[in-house]
Amino acid sequence: MTEDQIVQRLRKMAGDGRDRGVLVGIGHDCAVVRPRSGEDILLKTDQLIEQVHFPSGAAPEAIGARALARTLSDIAAMGGDPRCCLVALSVPPGTREQWIMSFFRGLLRLARRTGTVLAGGDLARSDRVHCTVMLYGAVRRGKALRRDGARPGDALYVSGRLGKPWDRPIVPRLALGKSLVGRATACMDLSDGLALDLHRLCLASGVAAELDRVPVMRGASIERALHGGEDYELLFSLPAPVSGNRQAPRGCFRIGTVVKGSPGAVIVEGRPLESRGYDHFSAP
Amino acid sequence: MTEDQIVQRLRKMAGDGRDRGVLVGIGHDCAVVRPRSGEDILLKTDQLIEQVHFPSGAAPEAIGARALARTLSDIAAMGGDPRCCLVALSVPPGTREQWIMSFFRGLLRLARRTGTVLAGGDLARSDRVHCTVMLYGAVRRGKALRRDGARPGDALYVSGRLGKPWDRPIVPRLALGKSLVGRATACMDLSDGLALDLHRLCLASGVAAELDRVPVMRGASIERALHGGEDYELLFSLPAPVSGNRQAPRGCFRIGTVVKGSPGAVIVEGRPLESRGYDHFSAP
Repeated sequence: MTEDQIVQRLRKMAGDGRDRGVLVGIGHDCAVVRPRSGEDILLKTDQLIEQVHFPSGAAPEAIGARALARTLSDIAAMGGDPRCCLVALSVPPGTREQWIMSFFRGLLRLARRTGTVLAGGDLARSDRVHCTVMLYGAVRRGKALRRDGARPGDALYVSGRLGKPWDRPIVPRLALGKSLVGRATACMDLSDGLALDLHRLCLASGVAAELDRVPVMRGASIERALHGGEDYELLFSLPAPVSGNRQAPRGCFRIGTVVKGSPGAVIVEGRPLESRGYDHFSAP
Repeated sequence: MTEDQIVQRLRKMAGDGRDRGVLVGIGHDCAVVRPRSGEDILLKTDQLIEQVHFPSGAAPEAIGARALARTLSDIAAMGGDPRCCLVALSVPPGTREQWIMSFFRGLLRLARRTGTVLAGGDLARSDRVHCTVMLYGAVRRGKALRRDGARPGDALYVSGRLGKPWDRPIVPRLALGKSLVGRATACMDLSDGLALDLHRLCLASGVAAELDRVPVMRGASIERALHGGEDYELLFSLPAPVSGNRQAPRGCFRIGTVVKGSPGAVIVEGRPLESRGYDHFSAP
């Protein structure tokens, strides 16, 4: 099978994307997208690599879905609506056409469920499976959620239990993210562990945090919930309610409070928490 | 050096992108871009892989520039103006920070020259250097050049001599691409060799082509000019002039004529030319 034949099959599988603004899709030099008025555009790219992010022999459908889900999680973290994606995939020589089609079937199933059009990409050979998804989303003009607006007194939340194993499917929190637009003072997604990501949110906002409670996944350790990666839940702050307790958004857990202090510091039971998490570049 | 420290350095190197519409750049979950009214958006992604697209040991500045140049060439092919890019890079364990910075210096030099803002990306480890650039550009609404509008009688052109060695710097034909908007009936960039890419243009347009002349790079073979890849020149068609000869656009060569015939057929001296070029997926 030639590259052109694979591209032709993918074009049929991807279908028409006009209702999402995609005027020209797979099979041209670029995808052409018509932006809607009153919207800003969100762009995200993320890599998923064999033996780094998943073991050799993992199911292709799951890899395809996961590659897309990770970028959808970032669109959710900024309160956006996904519109289309480009997928760069390289596979080892000898990989069957069937594997490639299964990868895209898994990706397209999640794409359809979230209104994301597969609008283009690139296929190549390499020695391991390497996938980079580029996602294009939109958000109301000037309303993108950011990680730098948390203020002392804000309550901190996460959208689910933490410490997930790598092979648990990612459910991007798109509806929650959209519902937080205009409400959350800061928001980001958890990809490198709560300890490091909460540190990053606080550093960007110039504040500190007191962490009271960490909702841990059944079977996971507190160590993994704090310092593991790949949770893909949303971490966000809401202004303190004027009176009494605020109900956490559905399915979310209150984990602590934003406080004044050394920017980026995270305090647990009066002690600083180490901002250690998953890092591709620090010494192992 | 941690991933966060590398990202901080890149943020400083990349500078501010507000004049290109980039409101939020490196260091957030997504880049945020404000589209201009009256424009469509062009999206492109392309991979550059060690031992596939360049040999191990190639200069990092050249790899960075080449990774960006290839995607700029596709924006040029649709008549667009580049605005920003996201760069996903993975490097082998033990790669020096210096290598990564040189890669981005090479990429950023070309980015600045072409008005492209580095707005985000992803860093990871893998066993070989693997770079995926995602480019966001814009074009006047409804005016993107396409490859499917060539009509019998149109004259065919390429923007330079063909058969380039892989290590010759790519000069993306952005000014030419923009000047062809509203004039060219079809346009694409040459990445897999003239024979295969001209076949693709003709197939998309439902026409055939007579190839009269191939401008060959000094020192290159006609075989390489026809069936090699990596030229990154523009291939385009212009309507036949009403009278007399048309001057080729500056620096361009007339190579033949669009004719009626079996869609995709390319005829040289009365005989069909094999649509063979660089293909990652056909048997070697």
